[in-house]
Amino acid sequence: MAKVRDMALASRGRHQIYWAERNMPVLLKIRERFSKEKPLEGLRVAASLHVTKETAVLVKTLAAGGAKVALVPSNPLSTQDDVAAALAEEGVDVYAWRGMNEREYYNAIGFALSLRPDITMDDGADLTVALHKLAHGIRDRTTDYVVEISGNLDFRELASKVRGGTEETTTGVIRLRALHREGKLLYPIIAVNESYTKYLFDNRYGTGQSTWDGIMRATNALIAGKVVVVAGYGWVGRGIAMRARGLGARRVIVVEVNPIRALEAVFDGFEVMPMSEAAEVGDIFITATGDIRVIRVEHML
Amino acid sequence: MAKVRDMALASRGRHQIYWAERNMPVLLKIRERFSKEKPLEGLRVAASLHVTKETAVLVKTLAAGGAKVALVPSNPLSTQDDVAAALAEEGVDVYAWRGMNEREYYNAIGFALSLRPDITMDDGADLTVALHKLAHGIRDRTTDYVVEISGNLDFRELASKVRGGTEETTTGVIRLRALHREGKLLYPIIAVNESYTKYLFDNRYGTGQSTWDGIMRATNALIAGKVVVVAGYGWVGRGIAMRARGLGARRVIVVEVNPIRALEAVFDGFEVMPMSEAAEVGDIFITATGDIRVIRVEHML
Amino acid sequence: MAKVRDMALASRGRHQIYWAERNMPVLLKIRERFSKEKPLEGLRVAASLHVTKETAVLVKTLAAGGAKVALVPSNPLSTQDDVAAALAEEGVDVYAWRGMNEREYYNAIGFALSLRPDITMDDGADLTVALHKLAHGIRDRTTDYVVEISGNLDFRELASKVRGGTEETTTGVIRLRALHREGKLLYPIIAVNESYTKYLFDNRYGTGQSTWDGIMRATNALIAGKVVVVAGYGWVGRGIAMRARGLGARRVIVVEVNPIRALEAVFDGFEVMPMSEAAEVGDIFITATGDIRVIRVEHML
Amino acid sequence: MAKVRDMALASRGRHQIYWAERNMPVLLKIRERFSKEKPLEGLRVAASLHVTKETAVLVKTLAAGGAKVALVPSNPLSTQDDVAAALAEEGVDVYAWRGMNEREYYNAIGFALSLRPDITMDDGADLTVALHKLAHGIRDRTTDYVVEISGNLDFRELASKVRGGTEETTTGVIRLRALHREGKLLYPIIAVNESYTKYLFDNRYGTGQSTWDGIMRATNALIAGKVVVVAGYGWVGRGIAMRARGLGARRVIVVEVNPIRALEAVFDGFEVMPMSEAAEVGDIFITATGDIRVIRVEHML
Repeated sequence: MAKVRDMALASRGRHQIYWAERNMPVLLKIRERFSKEKPLEGLRVAASLHVTKETAVLVKTLAAGGAKVALVPSNPLSTQDDVAAALAEEGVDVYAWRGMNEREYYNAIGFALSLRPDITMDDGADLTVALHKLAHGIRDRTTDYVVEISGNLDFRELASKVRGGTEETTTGVIRLRALHREGKLLYPIIAVNESYTKYLFDNRYGTGQSTWDGIMRATNALIAGKVVVVAGYGWVGRGIAMRARGLGARRVIVVEVNPIRALEAVFDGFEVMPMSEAAEVGDIFITATGDIRVIRVEHML
Repeated sequence: MAKVRDMALASRGRHQIYWAERNMPVLLKIRERFSKEKPLEGLRVAASLHVTKETAVLVKTLAAGGAKVALVPSNPLSTQDDVAAALAEEGVDVYAWRGMNEREYYNAIGFALSLRPDITMDDGADLTVALHKLAHGIRDRTTDYVVEISGNLDFRELASKVRGGTEETTTGVIRLRALHREGKLLYPIIAVNESYTKYLFDNRYGTGQSTWDGIMRATNALIAGKVVVVAGYGWVGRGIAMRARGLGARRVIVVEVNPIRALEAVFDGFEVMPMSEAAEVGDIFITATGDIRVIRVEHML
Repeated sequence: MAKVRDMALASRGRHQIYWAERNMPVLLKIRERFSKEKPLEGLRVAASLHVTKETAVLVKTLAAGGAKVALVPSNPLSTQDDVAAALAEEGVDVYAWRGMNEREYYNAIGFALSLRPDITMDDGADLTVALHKLAHGIRDRTTDYVVEISGNLDFRELASKVRGGTEETTTGVIRLRALHREGKLLYPIIAVNESYTKYLFDNRYGTGQSTWDGIMRATNALIAGKVVVVAGYGWVGRGIAMRARGLGARRVIVVEVNPIRALEAVFDGFEVMPMSEAAEVGDIFITATGDIRVIRVEHML
Repeated sequence: MAKVRDMALASRGRHQIYWAERNMPVLLKIRERFSKEKPLEGLRVAASLHVTKETAVLVKTLAAGGAKVALVPSNPLSTQDDVAAALAEEGVDVYAWRGMNEREYYNAIGFALSLRPDITMDDGADLTVALHKLAHGIRDRTTDYVVEISGNLDFRELASKVRGGTEETTTGVIRLRALHREGKLLYPIIAVNESYTKYLFDNRYGTGQSTWDGIMRATNALIAGKVVVVAGYGWVGRGIAMRARGLGARRVIVVEVNPIRALEAVFDGFEVMPMSEAAEVGDIFITATGDIRVIRVEHML
């Protein structure tokens, strides 16, 4: 069962998914193995994720492993309607279209919960939190929207049957940690964002490249010959600094208050100085500290 | 005198030009000097160039030097209407709007020639060739369009008064070299595209970066960890290979038939092999040979 | 009081120390502060370290802070006689010359212990272990040599007065950890080799450079254009791989069994493969695994 | 016929040559082909070169092609006696030992000329100049030493039979160009030092690495984190700057008066400034301008 924008978009969606698969060889390897071993046979997965071509590759892999998957959006605006149609065509229970209003968005969560999942997958914790509210007898506008579609289930029992879940974002994990501290978290959650590979590849290499991609698109500036200032030498900052060098920046200056990291930046071949000095020589400034007000009005005078 | 799409766009155009100026400090330095020394006082310049914010900085610099400039497009589709309006507002003789038809495009050249230029600036040689046809008494559809606006001038005399011109493109230079070989070129031309700095910065650094910019926009692929194959190790190819390394490519393979260049690629830290071998291991392929059929069907099997 | 090879060498030693100081600005900054604040006033330090120009800078810094220092060798062969003379001239209690025999070496430790130290500094744990043997009433040939110079002190009480010590090497730490497990360690030890900055700068940057320095001296080979194979992608391995790239190696191949590290190597821009494959294409092989038999006869056939 | 220090050194020399051959695969490929095709059959080659293991690989390759070779030193101090012995053992006409006096050195040239060469190979032009002096009837002390061994040949006729020669050094080429200008050069010379590959690999990559090799041996300094100043951005300078970056220098500053080269340095990712400014921030200074007094006393104050 599925509800999407337009099934006629399925063909275009299939091409999108095919392109994504070409760039996700590891997941395809896993799918190949899952197809033979069927390790998820009989499991039901309720996934609240961005409905994009990349997610589609994941969902198809879970399905190949034998899982029954219900897919709903984790954001009302990020759904690719063609991908949703293609997944629906393949028998995935998709309930997603671009531009849902609040009621439709929580209806979708109701749709996912009515699958009575063994596993939840979440990106922002909206589904997990909704289930917990209902299981703990809390009702509000959003849970009312959920129940419009799921009907009045025994959510306490439903939650107790969930073996575990995943949560992608730091924000989502903060919400669930709060539940846990109050003794109200009903099943274990894997905090995806805290794994080493996530830091390594997403923060360092992914953001290292995509930051420059964004700057080049926005400015059309040639990076070669520029003086680049990077505030913060954590995972993200070192990725950005490394790529600045790789794109030919003439000077790459790191602003970092932690003395060990500052020392590391120097030995990695970067200059280190306070923002007040860097502000006088930089052409391009990037803050990667996770904080605000790193560059202030005083630095611009 | 000017003819543009809509003078109301001038304010937006001024902002565009201002942004471009911020990234063109050398030209601004020259403008500063020109403003004092007025070395172009009394000179008339007919410029057939892409009417963009960057060109606008150049035109304003010529004007600051005392020149009277007529600006017309070198391509019927590349005009930025807001920039054209801003230039018109400043008193430049602009005759340009986006989406000219063939007649309007050559009318514009007629407009530029009616200035009776001392200098021509060209990007594709359409203006220079039109003037030479008219001066040598050749008439065709395009020159008829020119004359519609310029009126029937003594083009032979007009051309003899031109002190010199510039031509930006290789294609344009080929057209003008042909004229020269037949003894028909009426004034000296500077072939901009053959200068060392043009090779260095435009071909090596500019294309080196913009090629990757384009690939990242089109594919969203992470370059780190990829195997990149670059065919051709000329100015462009070495820029692309250098940036591939800088973006973290795992292997950068150069395909190059010239043995000296191939050797240079090896010592620059790249692998060299024939396309038939590279085709088996590459993830991303870029040809920079100036030739076609470098990658053929046989390489894809 | 001091015993060195030849006080006439002191002038040359002073020049050596001056050169080292020029390259140790941080220690000089600390010395400057120590000279004012005298934080070590009244403390006695027994140091068993390589008696080199770099160590001399350290010892002079301790002395500037007010400490009384006895310096003896941590290796019978590494003493720079000119440096020892220069330190003796400055009033440090040095007992060291190049080429000590076993008896002289342990005599030196006796010399250091007779200072009744508050702090011990060790590089291999010979001094610390000797003190512990004596404090626990264990006598053997080496402790007999110690007592020849120190005389029969109350070593138990002497050890109980030591506030703490440092040990530089992993080997030394293993010896002291064993004592600790048996409940016999008499004062706390800082394991220098386990600090983050030690890993970072000594293992990654130091060994990364010195490995190539050694290879270039031994082979006179040009690294540019070579295929380099690095086994192990720990701190040392990544330093060596990074510098191989920096010296222009055409391919840098990492052999690594840990999958996370292998993945990291790929995203850092290196190739990863098993030694059996790497052995067929490599020109230069470096093992940095901390293990033996990484490259075996089978790989050479 | 040969005259060397000690034939007993031949075995060690063979090992030296074998090691060099392992690192000269291109020459070995040529030798393989020469062994089959014998393109030099019947030709006599008089070579005045440094008698080292690398030269030995060249001489053996010429011999494999069918040439009869006489090898003499191009410098009285650079002969490796073991290599000379090994070549003599293989039947090459070697006349070389380390530490020849002037008379012995020119005697060696007489030995080479008595072969009545078809081709001369020179490194400094001593042999070529001696032959030209004799052919033009000029006698001095050095030619007298030559004739002591060669005997009184018809040198004019001998020179006229030489088909051509090579000269390795710039200095040698200057001497021969002077002869040419006076109309006295008797056969064509290939100026090896002016070939593109010589610039590329010897000047850029070779010197780029060996300069750092030398600095590391002399100073034991860690390059990572240092500020390196390179004066001159020609072939040598850019090799040195590139490797400074590769070894982790924190800033690489280029001092260059030629504006195009300076611009290129900036776009290659280096800083450019005058020596007066660079002198204030640099840790390590390298001049690669081919000139003296680039760094002056005023820069050190």
